[in-house]
Amino acid sequence: MTLSSIDPRTGTATAIDGADTTSDELDAICRRAAEAAPELAALPLRTRAALLRAAADELEAVRDQIVAVADRETALGQARLNNELTRTCYQLRLFGEVVDEGSFLELTIDHPGELPMGARPDVRRMLVPLGPVAVFGASNFPLAFSVPGGDTASVLAAGCPVVVKVHPAHPETSQLAFECLSRAAATVGAPQGTVATVAGYDAGAALVRHPAITAVGFTGSVHGGRALFDLACARPDPIPFYGELGSINPLVVLPAAAASRHDQISKDYVGSMTLGTGQFCTKPGLAFVPAGYGDEFHSALGAAIEEVAAGWLLTGGIRDAFGRGVARLGEHAGVREIGRGRSEEGNGYSASAALFLVPAEEFLASPDFFTQECFGPVAVVVTYADQAELDAMLRKVPGSLTGTIHGDEADHDLARPLLGRLTERAGRVLWNGYPTGVAVTWAMTHGGPWPSTTASTHTSVGTTAVRRFLRPVTFQSVPDGLLPVELREANELGLPRRVDGRLTLS
Amino acid sequence: MTLSSIDPRTGTATAIDGADTTSDELDAICRRAAEAAPELAALPLRTRAALLRAAADELEAVRDQIVAVADRETALGQARLNNELTRTCYQLRLFGEVVDEGSFLELTIDHPGELPMGARPDVRRMLVPLGPVAVFGASNFPLAFSVPGGDTASVLAAGCPVVVKVHPAHPETSQLAFECLSRAAATVGAPQGTVATVAGYDAGAALVRHPAITAVGFTGSVHGGRALFDLACARPDPIPFYGELGSINPLVVLPAAAASRHDQISKDYVGSMTLGTGQFCTKPGLAFVPAGYGDEFHSALGAAIEEVAAGWLLTGGIRDAFGRGVARLGEHAGVREIGRGRSEEGNGYSASAALFLVPAEEFLASPDFFTQECFGPVAVVVTYADQAELDAMLRKVPGSLTGTIHGDEADHDLARPLLGRLTERAGRVLWNGYPTGVAVTWAMTHGGPWPSTTASTHTSVGTTAVRRFLRPVTFQSVPDGLLPVELREANELGLPRRVDGRLTLS
Repeated sequence: MTLSSIDPRTGTATAIDGADTTSDELDAICRRAAEAAPELAALPLRTRAALLRAAADELEAVRDQIVAVADRETALGQARLNNELTRTCYQLRLFGEVVDEGSFLELTIDHPGELPMGARPDVRRMLVPLGPVAVFGASNFPLAFSVPGGDTASVLAAGCPVVVKVHPAHPETSQLAFECLSRAAATVGAPQGTVATVAGYDAGAALVRHPAITAVGFTGSVHGGRALFDLACARPDPIPFYGELGSINPLVVLPAAAASRHDQISKDYVGSMTLGTGQFCTKPGLAFVPAGYGDEFHSALGAAIEEVAAGWLLTGGIRDAFGRGVARLGEHAGVREIGRGRSEEGNGYSASAALFLVPAEEFLASPDFFTQECFGPVAVVVTYADQAELDAMLRKVPGSLTGTIHGDEADHDLARPLLGRLTERAGRVLWNGYPTGVAVTWAMTHGGPWPSTTASTHTSVGTTAVRRFLRPVTFQSVPDGLLPVELREANELGLPRRVDGRLTLS
Repeated sequence: MTLSSIDPRTGTATAIDGADTTSDELDAICRRAAEAAPELAALPLRTRAALLRAAADELEAVRDQIVAVADRETALGQARLNNELTRTCYQLRLFGEVVDEGSFLELTIDHPGELPMGARPDVRRMLVPLGPVAVFGASNFPLAFSVPGGDTASVLAAGCPVVVKVHPAHPETSQLAFECLSRAAATVGAPQGTVATVAGYDAGAALVRHPAITAVGFTGSVHGGRALFDLACARPDPIPFYGELGSINPLVVLPAAAASRHDQISKDYVGSMTLGTGQFCTKPGLAFVPAGYGDEFHSALGAAIEEVAAGWLLTGGIRDAFGRGVARLGEHAGVREIGRGRSEEGNGYSASAALFLVPAEEFLASPDFFTQECFGPVAVVVTYADQAELDAMLRKVPGSLTGTIHGDEADHDLARPLLGRLTERAGRVLWNGYPTGVAVTWAMTHGGPWPSTTASTHTSVGTTAVRRFLRPVTFQSVPDGLLPVELREANELGLPRRVDGRLTLS
């Protein structure tokens, strides 16, 4: 199939150069990645860090062009896309710092000694790259979770070649980004095959099953993610599949906060759930407000949602699913419409925001219905009578990337058990904030219990994202001169290491 | 089914108290574990460490009794079983130190700041327990990889309840060990449901599928492990399955070492491959020696193997599979028998050691045949003409727990590429040693690429084994007083933390 690029603002498709990757092409790409793997792994850490920085430089050098193309392919707007590119470049450079700093290698040295069981040999452990990793680009972050972005940065920082399955919603953006990454690899002398892309649905499935691939990073739907996860597990040699699937992201307003600032919360909440036309995996799609303030929220949320301009959804498929989801909610027994955003006449994949109110008894009668993620600017607000009812509902909320509490000082006692409940249910717990922004920092987590991710033990944002693509190797009694330089006694790179059980800084 | 305990030295079965766990019982056990989980997670770290130490104390208090029972059920011998118990108690106490030291929590704090993308909020990350974990006891380490042992110690150190599927080869040992762990839990005030056991094949499968179970630790065969791995992946909510399956553990002798000490290597190699009647997952089941020293090794290995006394295998199933495996090897084209160990007349599951020599061309014609693990005191020695032939064969060796090189100073140049190859293929690389002992230390790795483990990113021995049962949670802008004590600004527990990107010691 030849590729085409569609403008969501008009629905117009333009044929572009390129076609779906054939199975022979895919095999050749994966073999090149496998050949590149040991060579890439053997590059000095400073070269690996330089690769990440060069990738950032190359992307910034084409900023205006790539933002314009991405805007045409996604309709996310130049301001947002510029910010996305800035984020990605910041992340690549931060991961360069992570590589330089060296803690991610988990260097551990135990000198020979006596244990109650007998003599202990010299053992030295470090993490090494897994090998070629497949990454699936997401439609909603063409510059931050696609060909460039969190997964690619993690894979390269781990020292692994990356093969990206490009998202069909932004093929030209993907091509430009791939060229940037390729130039960066060439600049630092990384081997051919360090970065590659493939296109097409079948190529994606074949990629997950290819013997050379050692792990997968995925961001997308529960349906698509589960299918690929199943393929990864069914391989003769199963491989780790780090998937970020769907998330409803519950948000709870406690009584004192509801009393003191329901207007502000309503306004900000509507801003968060409609950000990027509601196409954030961290969209707070389910809010719980005290029943005693149900009318106040209904009125404040209604005023806020009616101010929301129509936006464009990324693809025709998302637009259709959004339309069905909003219709289903509106028709469900006991659901009241709070309000709708502005509508837009004309072509393309435009969508108006929608917000619904649901009483607790309706929610508890159909929790699966109300906790399904619907991509786009729609959310459900549920009223709760007391903490017991709130907790009964939260127990029905599936695993999420985030959980948010809005509370005042007077809410702290109510907040304690609630924090415990959300910690069980989510990978990030926010206080008086909104989950849609995900800061790139050392301490960030972007992951949570199923279905928000397939592996809640690891996460796709934050510097520890690198850990997904590494495995430990221990060298026992290996002569110093034959050890990897990072594990030699002299520590000439000055890396942090745990020596005989004690953590030592560089 | 009622339980029975079999003495491998005689094959005599004795009925004992207890029966296979019914599905209702299993459900009740898992529910209790789920109820215990938040309470256990909330205990102070020092109580968690005390639980590990108390478990060691309780096991040591019944040392004579549990070693005698384990010896009757496994025929592994009192010396070995005493050492196994010592190892387990050492490990429990070491994991207590890990909990006290606190690095395993990966505490990370980023204070508010400015990023190129805008303001960064206060974000604080730590690892939290996953929830109830299923552990499958192994037949070959009744005290070190069973009800007590590496997985159980890791699970408890992570703050998770453990439900152990006991191995039918040592039910009474399992019961005694369970009582020790239960007393330890009671002593420190851990909740009921912190430790439990189930018995029976069906109960094992049901355990992996139970909604309350959040992860699995398994040690056993490729066949059984794969079946349970598939169940874990096929759940509506898949869970991580940390399985250690089968491993052939290649060992290479380089030319200078072959010349200078083929006698010593032969003697020590035979000692390693027959240790514990060959029932180590780290048994070096495949050795490569230079063809130029083929005769020397044939003669030295033959002399050593003929000295090996007969031993007992753990179960009738293992004895039968061992007999079939040895017969298959002996009948294969091109295979020469190097020698056999002594045989023992009489009852029980006795087995004689066996060693075979295979030329490289035969190996390369049937690599899958020669790299299959056969549990028990049997191994295959392959001759290689040169480095190219050796490397061609090593590329056919499946992922292993260990890879070993024997080399002298003059072998170092040959060793470098070989170390790279073995690092690709194994989780532990040894120099001039034997892989059968696995020291319990901070730097140990016991895991490797498929099929040696299902998840080479993590490992079941070494202090990082704890990481398998933890997941990250990030708290964003949460008031200090509402944070877990480990993440509060004051750091009153004095734990190591990464603050604003810089690692700081306690």
